[in-house]
Amino acid sequence: MRIIVDVMSGDNAPLELIKGAVLAADENPDCNISIVGDRETILRCAEDNRISVSGVDIIPSYSTIVMEDKALAVVREKKDSSMGIGLKMLQEGEGEAFVSAGNTGALIAGATLLVRRIKGISRAGIATILPFPTPVLLMDSGANLEVTPENLYQFAFMGSKYMEKIYSINRPRVGQLNNGTEHTKGLPLQTETYQILKDSELNFVGNIEGKEVPFGACDVLVCDGFTGNVLLKNTEGMGKFMMALLKDILTSNPVTILAALSIKKKIKTLKHQFDASEHGGAPLLGISKPVIKAHGSSDAKAVKNAVRQAIAFVKSGINDDIEQFCAENDAKKGFFKKILK
Amino acid sequence: MRIIVDVMSGDNAPLELIKGAVLAADENPDCNISIVGDRETILRCAEDNRISVSGVDIIPSYSTIVMEDKALAVVREKKDSSMGIGLKMLQEGEGEAFVSAGNTGALIAGATLLVRRIKGISRAGIATILPFPTPVLLMDSGANLEVTPENLYQFAFMGSKYMEKIYSINRPRVGQLNNGTEHTKGLPLQTETYQILKDSELNFVGNIEGKEVPFGACDVLVCDGFTGNVLLKNTEGMGKFMMALLKDILTSNPVTILAALSIKKKIKTLKHQFDASEHGGAPLLGISKPVIKAHGSSDAKAVKNAVRQAIAFVKSGINDDIEQFCAENDAKKGFFKKILK
Repeated sequence: MRIIVDVMSGDNAPLELIKGAVLAADENPDCNISIVGDRETILRCAEDNRISVSGVDIIPSYSTIVMEDKALAVVREKKDSSMGIGLKMLQEGEGEAFVSAGNTGALIAGATLLVRRIKGISRAGIATILPFPTPVLLMDSGANLEVTPENLYQFAFMGSKYMEKIYSINRPRVGQLNNGTEHTKGLPLQTETYQILKDSELNFVGNIEGKEVPFGACDVLVCDGFTGNVLLKNTEGMGKFMMALLKDILTSNPVTILAALSIKKKIKTLKHQFDASEHGGAPLLGISKPVIKAHGSSDAKAVKNAVRQAIAFVKSGINDDIEQFCAENDAKKGFFKKILK
Repeated sequence: MRIIVDVMSGDNAPLELIKGAVLAADENPDCNISIVGDRETILRCAEDNRISVSGVDIIPSYSTIVMEDKALAVVREKKDSSMGIGLKMLQEGEGEAFVSAGNTGALIAGATLLVRRIKGISRAGIATILPFPTPVLLMDSGANLEVTPENLYQFAFMGSKYMEKIYSINRPRVGQLNNGTEHTKGLPLQTETYQILKDSELNFVGNIEGKEVPFGACDVLVCDGFTGNVLLKNTEGMGKFMMALLKDILTSNPVTILAALSIKKKIKTLKHQFDASEHGGAPLLGISKPVIKAHGSSDAKAVKNAVRQAIAFVKSGINDDIEQFCAENDAKKGFFKKILK
């Protein structure tokens, strides 16, 4: 197996990306790692930081997609970028999965146009794990600002498969993010999706309000990418706010400092729980080959975990299941078409 | 001044509502309080709980709007409800403001149809204070699932006036909730609203992401009611999650328990901060007379604070400012029409 890593994109590129890729190569001796980037930059960075890159293959690229780039740059003026070349390699079978911490819009556009969606899937989405005691897969968390009930149903199916195969959850509970729990709540998007999910083979547990999300109300939470992005980032901000507050409380006086020392391990676990890097990255579900979006602020550990996640994704066979599901739905002449008339 | 309180609606009605109204009457001797509800139920509840209702006026009602009722029930089959009668009193000038902890949809519908919107305001919205160290007024937090750029501009203006007059903030900073900070982010709703807010007389600070909300990025945050509701409830859920986590940490061992005792006051303050009841209720901005939606789970203290808020609203003259603003905009033949062409 070969995993392709874009080492030029992300807030901490190239150093942390290179370090992460090297760590991943060490951790997975039966797996090959290709890092894509400017050869000279990579070699200089490795030398300056005394990192041995002998365990990874270097694939040269000639430009870098930055945050300001338009999404389509990856297939046009910057197709020779680390992201463009990495996706092209994935398309051509020169690797089984691709990891990038770069521009999300470009990654989705490039993955869709080069690697292509699974036949029958109308939109790929970003699936992000919300780091609660019971992890929640949020989909879509930002790729599709507007969606249809069919998209949400496909997100629910793909998210369920992911949680089943990667998190070993039997019949994952699917919830729809809404402004109330009653089936009449929301806009037509939500009420129609409610009916589709209810009538589907999925383990649908109904509408979920924002306040229930931290308490394990479901395993897969579907919504449009606008609301999902707001929820994801609010959860992230609240986590940070909370850790700052805890620090403030635990440094109040000598007694609290002593207390903090006595529960050092617990606090560390807590920090880890809210640390995005622990969860690797967010898979783009619906693309025909595994593409993992690592967090923009990924450090070496996060990159290593994103590679681990990519390997698990490849081994899981999720995409085969999704393909089969699409073929069956197609054979039945369209589940949604039937329901939506 | 007279404040009308619906004592039949809410999770803790009638007891906590009656107690709260009586507390409010004690706290505000220069203000009259009318409580609306089933006379017999009120008198029995007061007697059973040894509450003297001699300081408040009892206005009889003959039904109660429940959560399952359709919004329009308040002006149709249940116009003799505590909510319907209270709103009718407000409409007819038998009081200066109305407080209810009941069905939000019914309260908005009733307020809009009976008390009416301020001339020139196309939608009334629910303005909720998010309880951070720097309070943020979120509008709309659930009344209008779909909005136009004009609605959002009016929310921004009304929210600014509220924060200026009630929270004494000079030129409140207005932000738009979005999935990124760049002006190109979001759907047409967000990009158009961005331009309108930027060109307006308001102190617009740009697009705000969910993660910035807890850290005082703005004083007034505008968005559609669907996203606002999800954000509000997620914040509420995260607050609860956080307090549970803190409790878990501080009861880990004898040292942490000692530490918790040493910062008892700090923890109490923190609890208060996240306690919705401290902030009273959420005003419906855009209605011609002050209507305050108290939290469904309001206890006596929350009701007392909601009445205090109603009094501050009446005294503030916010509605006069909004009326004047609408008249001026009308005179200029419509600010938005000009911008939106």
